[in-house]
Amino acid sequence: MQINKPEIVEEVTHAFMRYERALTSNDVEVLDELFWNSEHTVRFGATEHLYGFAEIQAFRAGRPSQGLDRDMLKTQITTFGDDLATAHLEFQRIGSDKVGRQTQTWVRLPQGWRVVSAHVSMLA
Amino acid sequence: MQINKPEIVEEVTHAFMRYERALTSNDVEVLDELFWNSEHTVRFGATEHLYGFAEIQAFRAGRPSQGLDRDMLKTQITTFGDDLATAHLEFQRIGSDKVGRQTQTWVRLPQGWRVVSAHVSMLA
Repeated sequence: MQINKPEIVEEVTHAFMRYERALTSNDVEVLDELFWNSEHTVRFGATEHLYGFAEIQAFRAGRPSQGLDRDMLKTQITTFGDDLATAHLEFQRIGSDKVGRQTQTWVRLPQGWRVVSAHVSMLA
Repeated sequence: MQINKPEIVEEVTHAFMRYERALTSNDVEVLDELFWNSEHTVRFGATEHLYGFAEIQAFRAGRPSQGLDRDMLKTQITTFGDDLATAHLEFQRIGSDKVGRQTQTWVRLPQGWRVVSAHVSMLA
């Protein structure tokens, strides 16, 4: 299993940055597209546990669309073979002095690269 | 890519529970065995960001060995094909009223199933 094949890193980085732009601009359609549409998808947020795509989608739809902008402090993406990646981000919301952390597992499915699991939290 | 093939779920659950027992009993040797020995491994803890196996190993070695016991409140493991899994756990430390969350990405490497990325945090 080849780690960090350059063309795979490039593909995943593209999907990852597309997600980041959608998140900070609250582009719910793209956010929904990039999460795996499955009952098995999990997203742990700072204040919530979401099991299955329906819960994640409802959370996006009900979220305030302001104050989502953030600085990316550090990013690390690792790819395994052609179809799997982990993505790690340290970030800081604009106007906040707290550091947040986002981890995602990306899988290449027939419909494209999708987040199958995500966890977001603030550093204690 | 087959999701949740029973024999793969069983294998990953076995590795996951082995990790859980090692964590709560502070069996550092097994914890080290089950994390991918690579500079690419990442572990975000409640109060720290660890990049690479060496940092994770140093953290384990320096951690107090008491007070690690916890109740498992909810577990969800999802497998993708034969070599990839995500594992989600909600837990509660004994004597604490806070809920914690652990997510792991497991990959089957030539040496066996290994955690290649992990994130632990407390629910805000």
